[in-house]
Amino acid sequence: MAHPVSPVSPPLKDELDIVIPTIRNLDFLEMWRPFFQPYHLIIVQDGDPTKTIRVPDGFDYELYNRNDVNRVLGPKASCISFKDSACRCFGFLVSKKKYIFTIDDDCFVAKDPSGKEINALAQHIQNLLTPSTPHFFNTLYDPFRDGADFVRGYPFSLREGAPTAISHGLWLNIPDYDAPTQLVKPLERNTRYVDAVMTIPKGTLFPMCGMNLGFNRELIGPAMYFGLMGHGQPIGRYDDMWAGWCAKVICDHLSLGVKTGLPYIWHSKASNPFVNLQKEYKGIYWQEEIVPFFQSVVFPEECTTVQNCYIELSKKVKEKLGAIDPYFEKLADGMVTWIEAWEELNPKPNAVKKEEPSVKSK
Amino acid sequence: MAHPVSPVSPPLKDELDIVIPTIRNLDFLEMWRPFFQPYHLIIVQDGDPTKTIRVPDGFDYELYNRNDVNRVLGPKASCISFKDSACRCFGFLVSKKKYIFTIDDDCFVAKDPSGKEINALAQHIQNLLTPSTPHFFNTLYDPFRDGADFVRGYPFSLREGAPTAISHGLWLNIPDYDAPTQLVKPLERNTRYVDAVMTIPKGTLFPMCGMNLGFNRELIGPAMYFGLMGHGQPIGRYDDMWAGWCAKVICDHLSLGVKTGLPYIWHSKASNPFVNLQKEYKGIYWQEEIVPFFQSVVFPEECTTVQNCYIELSKKVKEKLGAIDPYFEKLADGMVTWIEAWEELNPKPNAVKKEEPSVKSK
Repeated sequence: MAHPVSPVSPPLKDELDIVIPTIRNLDFLEMWRPFFQPYHLIIVQDGDPTKTIRVPDGFDYELYNRNDVNRVLGPKASCISFKDSACRCFGFLVSKKKYIFTIDDDCFVAKDPSGKEINALAQHIQNLLTPSTPHFFNTLYDPFRDGADFVRGYPFSLREGAPTAISHGLWLNIPDYDAPTQLVKPLERNTRYVDAVMTIPKGTLFPMCGMNLGFNRELIGPAMYFGLMGHGQPIGRYDDMWAGWCAKVICDHLSLGVKTGLPYIWHSKASNPFVNLQKEYKGIYWQEEIVPFFQSVVFPEECTTVQNCYIELSKKVKEKLGAIDPYFEKLADGMVTWIEAWEELNPKPNAVKKEEPSVKSK
Repeated sequence: MAHPVSPVSPPLKDELDIVIPTIRNLDFLEMWRPFFQPYHLIIVQDGDPTKTIRVPDGFDYELYNRNDVNRVLGPKASCISFKDSACRCFGFLVSKKKYIFTIDDDCFVAKDPSGKEINALAQHIQNLLTPSTPHFFNTLYDPFRDGADFVRGYPFSLREGAPTAISHGLWLNIPDYDAPTQLVKPLERNTRYVDAVMTIPKGTLFPMCGMNLGFNRELIGPAMYFGLMGHGQPIGRYDDMWAGWCAKVICDHLSLGVKTGLPYIWHSKASNPFVNLQKEYKGIYWQEEIVPFFQSVVFPEECTTVQNCYIELSKKVKEKLGAIDPYFEKLADGMVTWIEAWEELNPKPNAVKKEEPSVKSK
């Protein structure tokens, strides 16, 4: 009792929600208990709403099934995917917090090379609370980490960096491969621990995976829509990719940063590559046109909010990608509905609606 | 004697030169002997040409001092810096090989986290012989490394990648900081071994350090001019930065790749920050305009060779950066002289000179 330790509150305890989409009992939370228990969980139950999902004792959570989604959103519930982990974005919508961490229920605690268990959430928080460097590449990676800095030749005027909107974490064990790569390399495991966090430069797109992902909801929340996937849709497993492409072009326009790298989680089991192939095959084909589309997106200067940008993007999607397949017209409508739902559930304090003519007023 | 091992020739033994600028005896080569001895060295002696530089026995080398530079280049020798490691680019000019590895004489063999000595040259060769991925970011880093691949959402049409022109290696121990950062953090050492190689995306500039650098001379050699630095010039320590900015915009235009990351070398001693500040201070100021200039460079479609691009770039430098300081007009002239020297020493087989009106015909 010589040195009573004053309790340290977990970082952002009251400013962060953990969003988990699931179809099963959440036993995986046992392993995360030391790291997640102080935080509030938002569980989005996918599929059959009559099924009861068990959450281990001691966690603070709210759980939404499809009936809840329909009740909360009414006709706007059409924008939330059913029977697909894309439903996780409903959790982003109903959260009232500044930060979100979302994780899949087949992701476990990984260990660093020294054998220490990795607190993935703490690393995401660190990533989100320090600036990004989207305008110039720093060869020693994140200059805001201990023991690192900007290298010779890095312009001083750019060293303040940009606010970080997204922190994209990685996976040890089962890598996030598409179905063809899963089929060709069924035994490949990711064993390489790369001790780096870096900013994805402005103007560069990346494949954003939703398995292990943090973001600043105030900065980029309205762009984190996971699209129309799964039941009744011609495509699956592109929900996070879609959100990533949309969010990245908007971050670039608004000078916000996107980081990738640490933290790792342990991804336990590969999904069935044959099922995945069936879900993905149109996406694999369509992405050859979707990616050039996003690479060419330019927003007008008047688009100064995420909502503005997103509505503008929905118009471009309808106009340019609608030609590929009518699905994209439906998706563009879903994007508008999503923003309407966002504005309804997240009214701005004393919001005076101007310069947002495309968004339905409330 | 059961299994006589057939000797394996070191990779690219007859296709790669190691270029070393120096002012002192090359005792540092002893540590590199197991890795460098099979290769040919080009040593560029900086400063006083009457001084004799000792090279350890057993190395195959040619050594050029300032008198040799003047003899080989005649009046064009004006484009080669004096009393500055920028003189290393003379070695690039006189090499007849396809690949170059250049290293400073205060760089030693580093160890990986397992304690194994790192063959930096072998890693550069691996980087240069595998494609880059400048058009889309792969979150698991270099997809061409063992145990890695392209992740879900990476367009299949981009998976062939682009030819790799440059391999930029890093430094353990003394990081490559500018003078102000050296002064503020005199004790900071780089101890983080990041086990990654990655492509710097198209459209993104980076600070290229010449300490530990490989490149494909056939693909990008004429852009690897280290400028006018040191004796008689208003600026130093920006030679590699200049080459990096020029080379990167040209790589972007010609769809060539630039990698950074592994290999590490052990950088043994920090240069004097007070001396560095005196060399750098104008560069620190000027780079605030130089970087936006390079970010805005667009080459006309007719520029289909590195030489064409470089001459075009020299015109833009004179026009846009000449306003900052007359130094840039002199530098632009040096760039043209460099290309003239390159073409003189590296005549194309059966070259028919067309579409290169700016380059002096031979």
